[in-house]
Amino acid sequence: MEKVNLAEKLALVDDFWHPRVVAELNGQHVKVVKLAGPFVWHQHEREDELFLVVRGELRMELRDRSIELREGELLVVPRGVEHRPVAEREVEVLLFEPAGTLNTGNVRDERTVDAPERI
Amino acid sequence: MEKVNLAEKLALVDDFWHPRVVAELNGQHVKVVKLAGPFVWHQHEREDELFLVVRGELRMELRDRSIELREGELLVVPRGVEHRPVAEREVEVLLFEPAGTLNTGNVRDERTVDAPERI
Repeated sequence: MEKVNLAEKLALVDDFWHPRVVAELNGQHVKVVKLAGPFVWHQHEREDELFLVVRGELRMELRDRSIELREGELLVVPRGVEHRPVAEREVEVLLFEPAGTLNTGNVRDERTVDAPERI
Repeated sequence: MEKVNLAEKLALVDDFWHPRVVAELNGQHVKVVKLAGPFVWHQHEREDELFLVVRGELRMELRDRSIELREGELLVVPRGVEHRPVAEREVEVLLFEPAGTLNTGNVRDERTVDAPERI
């Protein structure tokens, strides 16, 4: 049982759109990720997904509107809801979602991470 | 689907040791709580529990050691592990745990919250 310092973990991340696991509990993963630019439109069939902005700003685009998230703000995207994270500038994000959740959901592209490592 | 601003939610909290639900996903609850002083020693039989310090400092006492958490640090206390949160000064904490997790675990006292409200 060791504590996790989010800033220290994020300092280890040197790429974008590549979530890494920092903690696990009750079958859920806590991940950190750096985002920059637009991601791919996708949805998760069975998983609700939580985004918490640790540093910076994130826009969550939905098909009918967008939600702007600032530091200290979180959003739960329910399963089955199409979404596209867009970061105008680099942003650091904590994710909370079931273990096994694929970052690109129902879509497969060059940014799909099948087995995120633990840091 | 609405975003949650943690500071705004915590500004609504005017008591201690009384967790309130701010989001729910995959059968899990995200809660916020203000802590001050020592809590009761307890454990959770079936639930792992995540503590993330939003503001201030928190000491998690375990039977064999203590872990000091600062802002931006998180700890997962696995099920079955006795623990006692202690806050020398007021601290703001985010909890992540299965819906239905009792704040005092296997112990019942005057701070037990059976059905935390949503704010």
